[in-house]
Amino acid sequence: MPNNPTSNIQHPTSENIVWHDHHVSKAERAQIKQQKPCILWFTGLSGSGKSTIANAVEAALLAQKKHTYLLDGDNIRMGLNKGLGFSDEDRVENLRRIGEVAKLFVDAGIIVLTAFISPFRSERQRVRELVDEGEFIEVFVDTPLEVCESRDPKGLYKKARAGEISDFTGIDSPYEAPEFPEIHIRNDRLPIEEAAAQVLDHLEKKGYLNA
Amino acid sequence: MPNNPTSNIQHPTSENIVWHDHHVSKAERAQIKQQKPCILWFTGLSGSGKSTIANAVEAALLAQKKHTYLLDGDNIRMGLNKGLGFSDEDRVENLRRIGEVAKLFVDAGIIVLTAFISPFRSERQRVRELVDEGEFIEVFVDTPLEVCESRDPKGLYKKARAGEISDFTGIDSPYEAPEFPEIHIRNDRLPIEEAAAQVLDHLEKKGYLNA
Repeated sequence: MPNNPTSNIQHPTSENIVWHDHHVSKAERAQIKQQKPCILWFTGLSGSGKSTIANAVEAALLAQKKHTYLLDGDNIRMGLNKGLGFSDEDRVENLRRIGEVAKLFVDAGIIVLTAFISPFRSERQRVRELVDEGEFIEVFVDTPLEVCESRDPKGLYKKARAGEISDFTGIDSPYEAPEFPEIHIRNDRLPIEEAAAQVLDHLEKKGYLNA
Repeated sequence: MPNNPTSNIQHPTSENIVWHDHHVSKAERAQIKQQKPCILWFTGLSGSGKSTIANAVEAALLAQKKHTYLLDGDNIRMGLNKGLGFSDEDRVENLRRIGEVAKLFVDAGIIVLTAFISPFRSERQRVRELVDEGEFIEVFVDTPLEVCESRDPKGLYKKARAGEISDFTGIDSPYEAPEFPEIHIRNDRLPIEEAAAQVLDHLEKKGYLNA
């Protein structure tokens, strides 16, 4: 350990190293992937079909050799957001981190898909503002509460109705529908393939798939 | 809003949707990238050259059309880890989140490079254990403290010596050198290009670049 900052004179050769920085840009990372990176932010009630449609979209994009990644409860809650609960503060922090991670994936050139209820306009707006214009695509999976509740794939509505869980979106906590979603999947009777096709059409027409 | 959970009988058509899940696997995401995803975890003192070497490696990988992403202070501290300070608890949480995000990138098929001092063996070990065997590559940038201090690119050593910042690694906080790093960059007189070549050779020989 040197005793003073002037010890550098003992290492003249290290001064000769040329410290060029070759920062790889977002554009370069995206370019080799032949696509325009973006966030497909699926929002809707529990049981609306967000995850299922997002998975179908991801599979279709993979078939086109597109570079994607899906963030959902499975890979976020047990990892990055482990330790966060369901208080208002923790829910805000939960989505804030997801937004920041989605932004990193966009920076890496990836088409990111996220599937979280994200019931509040303000929190979705916050993610939109994290990234550049055109990089946030809000996909509203607009399935009526009755249909979601009849599906109840995780038995959560039943528990919410029984009062076993509280602050459940659609039951005792509001869902603020997007006002101007880029993609609005309206018909709950739509086969998954058609819902996915609606998303793929948008990406195709807006030039995300051939940058 | 339905008043009871039996309301599903009013929506028989929604029952006919076949909810196939097409989960895209890590192997499929990696396959279209023609590489074996991993974390190149650069560790070393402040000023050791972690970021510079990592940037050079990333640029060289891009030239080979490899899919990479670099996590460093620039894109982590201001975003995902905004709000974390430098207490012991916050430092642990800082690296925990970085590890979890690096894991997501590996899952997405990417070669992730990280450049953080990460002075403690236990915290590097924790990241190693997050991912599968062979996915964590510890790169020890072993530049002597004297050399780092003589470079002092951010003026931090000077401040640490003046007592303006505390718990500074190498000055009043220990750096625990890796015992068995996969890659050991020893010579501080090595041009950046040669240090980068050492990392690239390892990736090449171990089959990371042609999966």
